[in-house]
Amino acid sequence: MHVPTDAFGGMSPEYKAASALKNLFTMVAVRVVMAQEQGYDNEGGAMTPTYKGLQDFLAENPLRDGNKWLEQLMHHDDNNMRLTALRLLEVRRAYASGQFDFGGMHDLAVAELTKENDRLMADYVKDSMDLPDAGLGEDGMNH
Amino acid sequence: MHVPTDAFGGMSPEYKAASALKNLFTMVAVRVVMAQEQGYDNEGGAMTPTYKGLQDFLAENPLRDGNKWLEQLMHHDDNNMRLTALRLLEVRRAYASGQFDFGGMHDLAVAELTKENDRLMADYVKDSMDLPDAGLGEDGMNH
Repeated sequence: MHVPTDAFGGMSPEYKAASALKNLFTMVAVRVVMAQEQGYDNEGGAMTPTYKGLQDFLAENPLRDGNKWLEQLMHHDDNNMRLTALRLLEVRRAYASGQFDFGGMHDLAVAELTKENDRLMADYVKDSMDLPDAGLGEDGMNH
Repeated sequence: MHVPTDAFGGMSPEYKAASALKNLFTMVAVRVVMAQEQGYDNEGGAMTPTYKGLQDFLAENPLRDGNKWLEQLMHHDDNNMRLTALRLLEVRRAYASGQFDFGGMHDLAVAELTKENDRLMADYVKDSMDLPDAGLGEDGMNH
């Protein structure tokens, strides 16, 4: 099966998928650090400056490209935010190398795709029973 | 490391990644079939009806959700396009189960992320040498 090399602007599907994963891992790191900060907060309801800072930065800069986003955060006016960017680097690295379940994702992708193929195929067969050009009458018999 | 369960609308990162992969595999299947059709075309320049049909359908319906897209194609007025949808189901299943290099994608994602982390860290160190609050003068010495 030949996948044209220009299919994704010169990127292989594997490269394109890896890029999307890196962005996902960056988003996971942000959520992990925010959850850690919520855990640190013992005041019940108040937010730590780091939590608030990340929340504000994320609202102003939606995370699309993980690297660009971290690069921007590293140039934040607030020194605490620049240090938080370093913390995010470490968290996303640890998540990517140790915690993300690549095997589980593989199994899930193939299993879900197979299931959805089966459903689409069943719908197709059901629909084609009703199509006029199927040559079948109301009673489902050939006439 | 705790990933909050509500981070991605209740989906695990693995589930979210698997969904993105399924859409990618559907897009790959479209490109594979279009390349096959170009190969079948011996007229040099002319397009097969299937190639033209897929091209037009894609232009009118950008592929975001692979399943919805295939479902729409299965309800195309043109019977040839409905049969092409069945062919795409088979191609994406074969690609997902046999050809896509999950291991290569895994290695690539971790290697690229590590490389980008190193670069971001190096930039951070370089930048902090120039920051006023680093207490370093033009000559790079502490004053």
